[in-house]
Amino acid sequence: MNKTELVGLIHKKQSFLCVGLDTDINLIPRNLHKHADPVFEFNKAIIDATHDLAIAYKPNLAFYESMGLKGWESLEKTMQYLEQFKDSVFTIADAKRGDIGNTSKMYAKTFFEHFNFDSVTVAPYMGEDSVTPFLEYKNKWVILLGLTSNKGSSDFQFLETGEGKLYERVIKKAQQWGSPEQLMFVIGATHPEEFKNIRAMAPGYFFLVPGVGAQGGDMEKICDNGMNNECGLIINSARQIIYASNGEDFADAARNTALYTQQQMTKYLNAPNT
Amino acid sequence: MNKTELVGLIHKKQSFLCVGLDTDINLIPRNLHKHADPVFEFNKAIIDATHDLAIAYKPNLAFYESMGLKGWESLEKTMQYLEQFKDSVFTIADAKRGDIGNTSKMYAKTFFEHFNFDSVTVAPYMGEDSVTPFLEYKNKWVILLGLTSNKGSSDFQFLETGEGKLYERVIKKAQQWGSPEQLMFVIGATHPEEFKNIRAMAPGYFFLVPGVGAQGGDMEKICDNGMNNECGLIINSARQIIYASNGEDFADAARNTALYTQQQMTKYLNAPNT
Repeated sequence: MNKTELVGLIHKKQSFLCVGLDTDINLIPRNLHKHADPVFEFNKAIIDATHDLAIAYKPNLAFYESMGLKGWESLEKTMQYLEQFKDSVFTIADAKRGDIGNTSKMYAKTFFEHFNFDSVTVAPYMGEDSVTPFLEYKNKWVILLGLTSNKGSSDFQFLETGEGKLYERVIKKAQQWGSPEQLMFVIGATHPEEFKNIRAMAPGYFFLVPGVGAQGGDMEKICDNGMNNECGLIINSARQIIYASNGEDFADAARNTALYTQQQMTKYLNAPNT
Repeated sequence: MNKTELVGLIHKKQSFLCVGLDTDINLIPRNLHKHADPVFEFNKAIIDATHDLAIAYKPNLAFYESMGLKGWESLEKTMQYLEQFKDSVFTIADAKRGDIGNTSKMYAKTFFEHFNFDSVTVAPYMGEDSVTPFLEYKNKWVILLGLTSNKGSSDFQFLETGEGKLYERVIKKAQQWGSPEQLMFVIGATHPEEFKNIRAMAPGYFFLVPGVGAQGGDMEKICDNGMNNECGLIINSARQIIYASNGEDFADAARNTALYTQQQMTKYLNAPNT
């Protein structure tokens, strides 16, 4: 999916919501366990209930890998199921990969060829050759960790480097590697005060924003400080939506939460300053 | 495996060689393609030919993931095969994971419970809570990226932060999270001049050293500058060993290269200054 198409989706659905498929077999409703693949059944029900409200889905690889072969299979089935929505949904492999060039090339193959994801999250520590193999795919995206939402983001990302903090250096440097048509940044919702600065540094780039909801980020501040004239934000919500209920009504409950979030987003999209 | 056992292995085998199982279906001998699982057959033959010379094996996750379910299965079979050597071989999942706490916990489960690896490589960018879930397992290890072997290591790892370069800050900070009994660092062989400084900063820690061989690192300098009184080094060689021949004699050729490397290592282990 290219940027024009992504921006088109946002306007059409009046939403910039990404649903995080952090599907944990221990947290899904008991009644799904009768199925051969409960994780896939859960994802399918969540997708069916929310795909008109969400513009993106983000499976978190760790949750699938931790189940071994079975989890890998659930992820393959989820991606196959999402194929029918490939023009109306942007897919994100939340994998946080990154390795030397020849290895990153293999990871790119995994996510872009094998699974056919639109994008993958990538860690910046190893620098240019760990990122560029992912940028060689047309209409596929790297979502590079900039400023993450977790507590540990303060350990290294805020270090002063002489010319700005480490996360600022990452965001500046990476713009030499990829254009706003192929590169986004992860910017955690738990740092709303940084968004104005980051938006000024990377005006045309999309930001994937985790940490709204369970992690406590404030959507209004983020929109005020982080939007650009193409929206420029994809806000992820996982636990708050997919586990809105732990009963048999989980899909309806997920839809209600997604709908509430999408309605808020419509307001921000149509606010006079955007 | 704990540190005493690891050091015992190094002395017993007179080796600190790790064989990197970067197994690429396109590079293995054609005659293996007649098997149902050529990647596993290749790994099995390499392990059989080298397990008395190597103290560790390091499957590179990207190579398996890029093959989807089939690759995941080859990795599971490889790890099951290595179970018989679990007292004589240290296993490393070269996965370079790292995410917010609850997600890192799932990755730890994947590598330490599902696959039963002794250790996993972890990326430091997201800080403490992305690393500590891996440290909660007894006799399991985190191998944290310190200074990597690739060209891109110069993009961020050498940034001056006021109190040392970024990679030095990572190595110092991480010592607050994990002891030398549970934490190692990745230090690339392509920076031999940095080893003396890094050894002084982290005297009791093991370093996993990639980049000897295909990437051009010099083993002698690394041993001179990086060994401690327990050896303190695990040197990885992948392509140079596993692809020593692309014919049917690949396992014999791998053994010959491993033997040559192990003989060099014996010299360094018994050099007067170690």
